[in-house]
Amino acid sequence: MPDPLTLSSDDLESILQGACFLGSGGGGPLDLGRQFIDDIAKTGNPVRVVDVASVPADATGAIAAGVGSPTAAASGFPSDAPGVAWKELERIVGHSLGYLVPAEIGAGNTFIPFLLSAQTRLPVIDGAGADRAVPALQLCTYAAAGVPLGTVVLGNSDLVLSFATQDPAVADGAMRALLGGGVFDEDAGSALWAMDGQQIGAGAIRGTTSRALQVGKLLKDPTDPVQAVVSYLGGSVLIRGTITEIGEVTGGGFDTGHVTITASGSGGDSVTVVNVNENLIAYSGQSATVLATAPDLLCFMTTDGQAFSNAEAQTYADSKAEVALILVPSSPQMRSDYLLDGFEAVLRSVGYYGPLQLMPAPA
Amino acid sequence: MPDPLTLSSDDLESILQGACFLGSGGGGPLDLGRQFIDDIAKTGNPVRVVDVASVPADATGAIAAGVGSPTAAASGFPSDAPGVAWKELERIVGHSLGYLVPAEIGAGNTFIPFLLSAQTRLPVIDGAGADRAVPALQLCTYAAAGVPLGTVVLGNSDLVLSFATQDPAVADGAMRALLGGGVFDEDAGSALWAMDGQQIGAGAIRGTTSRALQVGKLLKDPTDPVQAVVSYLGGSVLIRGTITEIGEVTGGGFDTGHVTITASGSGGDSVTVVNVNENLIAYSGQSATVLATAPDLLCFMTTDGQAFSNAEAQTYADSKAEVALILVPSSPQMRSDYLLDGFEAVLRSVGYYGPLQLMPAPA
Repeated sequence: MPDPLTLSSDDLESILQGACFLGSGGGGPLDLGRQFIDDIAKTGNPVRVVDVASVPADATGAIAAGVGSPTAAASGFPSDAPGVAWKELERIVGHSLGYLVPAEIGAGNTFIPFLLSAQTRLPVIDGAGADRAVPALQLCTYAAAGVPLGTVVLGNSDLVLSFATQDPAVADGAMRALLGGGVFDEDAGSALWAMDGQQIGAGAIRGTTSRALQVGKLLKDPTDPVQAVVSYLGGSVLIRGTITEIGEVTGGGFDTGHVTITASGSGGDSVTVVNVNENLIAYSGQSATVLATAPDLLCFMTTDGQAFSNAEAQTYADSKAEVALILVPSSPQMRSDYLLDGFEAVLRSVGYYGPLQLMPAPA
Repeated sequence: MPDPLTLSSDDLESILQGACFLGSGGGGPLDLGRQFIDDIAKTGNPVRVVDVASVPADATGAIAAGVGSPTAAASGFPSDAPGVAWKELERIVGHSLGYLVPAEIGAGNTFIPFLLSAQTRLPVIDGAGADRAVPALQLCTYAAAGVPLGTVVLGNSDLVLSFATQDPAVADGAMRALLGGGVFDEDAGSALWAMDGQQIGAGAIRGTTSRALQVGKLLKDPTDPVQAVVSYLGGSVLIRGTITEIGEVTGGGFDTGHVTITASGSGGDSVTVVNVNENLIAYSGQSATVLATAPDLLCFMTTDGQAFSNAEAQTYADSKAEVALILVPSSPQMRSDYLLDGFEAVLRSVGYYGPLQLMPAPA
């Protein structure tokens, strides 16, 4: 990616598709990303993305993200909320912050820093704390790199709240408790993990936005979008078929769901993907050997090139569209002992007590 | 087994050990069985066990079982409760019932019919509705054989309650709701599934008490009780080691737990058994291939021959005793399509979406 890159509206559409795909079932619904693209257009300003390598060691930045309120109105995400949180974090740390840092990849959280970039004219780094969407704050690479967390701000035009802890798992629990407890009536923006350029370089997985852009372009491949995406990402097709079952179980601290895809034809094989928003594990209906686990990416698309998340799965179940489940190897940075231990703990919370089942790491 | 057999107190002790082992982690704590053995001794009467083949087709019988109340005092199971429920079922069906039918195998529910036999002088059939403890009423062979359920009675000296349904799954849900809702302050006896001799013959797995007796005797083998039991049952040792972790997750309608056994030595392999009271699935810590699932039996013993259930697992974790997890193939009668579908549903409720992983059925 040239440095800096100004994203066109075509680029934003491609990134939406690519980020939704790489989000591995989570990362926010497509509609949320579409709303952010509209919000960005309304600012009349471009989104600027810069290579991580171009960020000076003494630069400053922070993660910009969004958090959903269970009591939020259907009117959409408040577009001023990320800026409210960002300004409050700047006030607390006592200086301005120069770079917007994405937390993860997905149709929602990829676009919050973009929106802030258009609103504030600050650049977004071409990188993120994960190469997919992750179910908890402690599962991102900034945590693995030992970047101190510091203050977390949640805010919208109604309420701004901050708390400080050095433990990302404690912060994650506090955020869940605050949101679950109904502290925010509407969705909120979040600004957190203020860091310097050296820490951004040490923590971020580089090129995640460029990759989402490229995946989004390949999804438009007129011949075989599945093959185009699989080749580019070094992945494999776990199954092609239709969505034959969607389930949701509430309890145990996590709301877990599952999506079953069944291959066409009589006696078709099936694969069931279990999610906690994000896809975590793929069970074969035919074998007691688990097919794949997080942190590897379990990505959804229709075979004609439309990415989707668990939020859209019911639509494609209803339409009986042909879909594909694509396994993509996670980045080497997602495979530190720290993160693998964290993913093992999440997998146990959804009932899997075996070892991680991962593709070989890409070079 | 000679017909009828009068069980000695040595036999009862052996059956307690064997039933606890075959109960596959569930079926009630050992202390409950010990209390029933004391209660039986106090009656001064013997327990009579008869071969299923000796039951005339026009005989009458019903299941005698016990149900636990979450608010029960620690003072033990009320020994008069099973008789209260039994007499009420006789009153409702309008005739006396001649044979006591065990529901499942375990340290608790194997002994309730024994206690009633000593109290009422009625014979107990040498058979049960499962060759292990099962997590729900619809997972027993009487359900698979299509024996009409009819009236279910729950009762103790405080309260007697009955309801009727033909669907064992509905009855199971109603019993859980009644007990969970605090209707009974103390544990209760249960009498249900009134049936005739022909239905007992069609539904019961034969010889389950004889098998528990034999397993209990083999557990006393002075040389190698593990090998003695494994040879007799055609099973295999999944792991020998110490209990290194015990966990419990509440939620999703089931309280699921797990026990991890780790082999001795550095880098020792581990196996984690997930239970809903009863053991349901064994995960290897080293392989993404599931080792075994219900209905196959996942049985606990110390390597010096003491059977134990999940209720006693903490004791052996604390003492660091060497234990073994034994896999035993389930009986052919546990493998009807009806029951395998039922076990698949239970396994999904604890997060496993693959196929059943069973040993070949014994001849």
